Amino acid sequence: MALNHTHDAGAKSWIDTANIEGTDFPIQNLPYAVFRRTGSPEPFRGGVAIGDQVLDMAALSARQLLDGLALDAARAAALPALNDFFALGGAAWRALRHAVFALLRGDAPAATVHAVRECLVPQAEVEYTVPARIGDYTDFYTSIDHALNISRLMNPDGDVTPNFRWIPTAYHGRVSTIGVSGQRFHRPMGQTMAPGAKAPTYHACARLDYELELGVWVGEGNATGEPIPLERAEEHIFGICLLNDWSARDIQFWEMAPLGPFLAKNFATTISPWIVTMEALAPYRQAWTRPANEPQPLGYLEGPSNRESGAIDIRLEVWLESEKARNEKSGPSRLSRTSFKHQYWSVAQMVAHHTVGGCSLNPGDLFGSGTISGPGPGEAGAIIELTRAAQSPVTLANGEERGFLEDGDAVLLRGWCEKPGHARIGFGESRGTVLPARG
Amino acid sequence: MALNHTHDAGAKSWIDTANIEGTDFPIQNLPYAVFRRTGSPEPFRGGVAIGDQVLDMAALSARQLLDGLALDAARAAALPALNDFFALGGAAWRALRHAVFALLRGDAPAATVHAVRECLVPQAEVEYTVPARIGDYTDFYTSIDHALNISRLMNPDGDVTPNFRWIPTAYHGRVSTIGVSGQRFHRPMGQTMAPGAKAPTYHACARLDYELELGVWVGEGNATGEPIPLERAEEHIFGICLLNDWSARDIQFWEMAPLGPFLAKNFATTISPWIVTMEALAPYRQAWTRPANEPQPLGYLEGPSNRESGAIDIRLEVWLESEKARNEKSGPSRLSRTSFKHQYWSVAQMVAHHTVGGCSLNPGDLFGSGTISGPGPGEAGAIIELTRAAQSPVTLANGEERGFLEDGDAVLLRGWCEKPGHARIGFGESRGTVLPARG
Repeated sequence: MALNHTHDAGAKSWIDTANIEGTDFPIQNLPYAVFRRTGSPEPFRGGVAIGDQVLDMAALSARQLLDGLALDAARAAALPALNDFFALGGAAWRALRHAVFALLRGDAPAATVHAVRECLVPQAEVEYTVPARIGDYTDFYTSIDHALNISRLMNPDGDVTPNFRWIPTAYHGRVSTIGVSGQRFHRPMGQTMAPGAKAPTYHACARLDYELELGVWVGEGNATGEPIPLERAEEHIFGICLLNDWSARDIQFWEMAPLGPFLAKNFATTISPWIVTMEALAPYRQAWTRPANEPQPLGYLEGPSNRESGAIDIRLEVWLESEKARNEKSGPSRLSRTSFKHQYWSVAQMVAHHTVGGCSLNPGDLFGSGTISGPGPGEAGAIIELTRAAQSPVTLANGEERGFLEDGDAVLLRGWCEKPGHARIGFGESRGTVLPARG
Repeated sequence: MALNHTHDAGAKSWIDTANIEGTDFPIQNLPYAVFRRTGSPEPFRGGVAIGDQVLDMAALSARQLLDGLALDAARAAALPALNDFFALGGAAWRALRHAVFALLRGDAPAATVHAVRECLVPQAEVEYTVPARIGDYTDFYTSIDHALNISRLMNPDGDVTPNFRWIPTAYHGRVSTIGVSGQRFHRPMGQTMAPGAKAPTYHACARLDYELELGVWVGEGNATGEPIPLERAEEHIFGICLLNDWSARDIQFWEMAPLGPFLAKNFATTISPWIVTMEALAPYRQAWTRPANEPQPLGYLEGPSNRESGAIDIRLEVWLESEKARNEKSGPSRLSRTSFKHQYWSVAQMVAHHTVGGCSLNPGDLFGSGTISGPGPGEAGAIIELTRAAQSPVTLANGEERGFLEDGDAVLLRGWCEKPGHARIGFGESRGTVLPARG
């Protein structure tokens, strides 16, 4: 995707908080969420983040500030779920981004500023919901560092399964328990089999984990049975959020042969409210490479634009705030940091593979990227990797140790992009909290 | 569930075709579908099968024939998707069944007969759609005969995985490609790995299969994170249909470790239009047993009503109609027949296990039972079992042979219940057709 004036690092907004260094939401970002005033009976509707404000798409589309495709797009984005907006496709998404950029830039006319100001709601006063009706949720498994870390827990010489280097592996996840940042869930009950035992036992999960992932939102779908070729794949993606795929490792290891994870991952999935658009991410694209000693993709997963810019340098961090740290107000501890650029398969390859057999994607479908771990120490996207299954617990800033998650722990995901000569843009935060098992 | 007058085998309808021996739709059945006149711009709405007619819930609820809870239920069942009707729960489902039974029985007053007759549409003149917005689709794996047949293809002494006898195993399936009987889909393309090969290849599926399953429709859901105990589980089930889980075996065997089936099963799933209610199935319940030499279930999967009546004797058949047979008009060939009563885990156990970790079920969620194979020869629910992966092809009535499915093949599933002293009730048919790969 070519860069344009909305990517200009020099652009400023008349909203001062959008110009503060380090903000997640400068005028170059303009991500979408669905919100309302906290605790109010207002309908949920789409909004765009700018500094510490939300630009209300319902209020905006009711004023005489937009026209044509941008107005159509704003009306669709004003609904309580963004599916219709996603379905409009890239030209409409671009029209609205460019129109909103013009309304918010520093040199906007005074009358525009006056009118747009009435469409702002402070982020501190809003609550969010899942931004679309999710038809299907697919969770990929596309970080080779994560896959190797997990294999080597079982066997120090372990490798990934033979298909990993040929297939953007994935399974279908659970839609009904996807929640937005702030989600609180009970530690799951389930069956586990102790090593050497003759029968499983039923108890609360003892090995609760998070997974650092990105959520990829499908925009326009494909016709039934009609595959999306690799080189058109990203046209079908609206944008990206943060995603925490909570995982009950003890339940998972007992249940998952031969059909994959089920109860171990379907009790909760937490996403960040803000969706950063593919257009906003354009400056942070990188070449997608595959080392020469690794298998090169089959033809349907291979193409020049994917090679040129299939990777995205999204910086990611996991933080843990224990209940004790919360009570002490000593703040969360950073557990790991990495980048999405290390992923073995690209977003376009996920789309192309997903549809190659005839599977339909629909607007509002969600992909999880799979756990994102990088190659270095401290780059692991799950605590089972960081602590080698609790053999080497991590120490938090206040001295507490963790092998797996404990009740009261909150896990925070953060993400941003930065690059010399370009604005820093961020994803906001995904936060989820573990409550005790119901028993 | 106690039997009542709607189960009386002696009851007749004033609609003569409902009284013909062998009909799927006598007055004791009264299953639901969503329909409209074929090719018309009419809205889809719910209907009840009676003989060769559909009783139109939209037409019925607009007349002065129902009141109270039955009227509320009929209004919900008149919508283009049955989710709101499912959400009303058992008392409403029962009220509408009993009211419709009274309207259709042979001794109904002439004025009633006159009014109801105006609400009938011949089944020969309608088309169906998927009867609810499916939030999540879960595919179980609960036939031990099927699981053993598959294991023994790899290894004659093979057994099921250790978890099979402890867990109603399941994975999340794909909602977007679930279609109603009549579905036609292209043979999927995908990756497979030939034995001994160094790299996979990309081509059309060469080992296309069906799976004989039942579809179980969730009625009332559970509150977030609140498990459904076994003994209340069936209150959350509205009814049952036929389900064909088309499977690309070559793609499946290459892709499924460690995360389970994905592209091998997400290109198409075909369901029958008619949903037979749990109340209609009450006479055909049987004791759920577990042989003494098998592990007995853990406590959360064990209970007296499940022991007493957890099994259901639903007779099932798979038929194949090749393109040649269709052109010759020589009719389909029966490939297998079995009963759902052999299943290792019951529907109630599926519900209890699914929710024990905190997973939410919603009205309109769909379960697949998993392939239903019985213990005897000719009772296999998939062609890979019947033909031992094409080593022993089956011969069709017109002399054609099949190892796996060929282009143009239509697969038909049929189901019914019968028992001395009770009416025979049926599920209608699920039909799906294989089109050539798009290449």
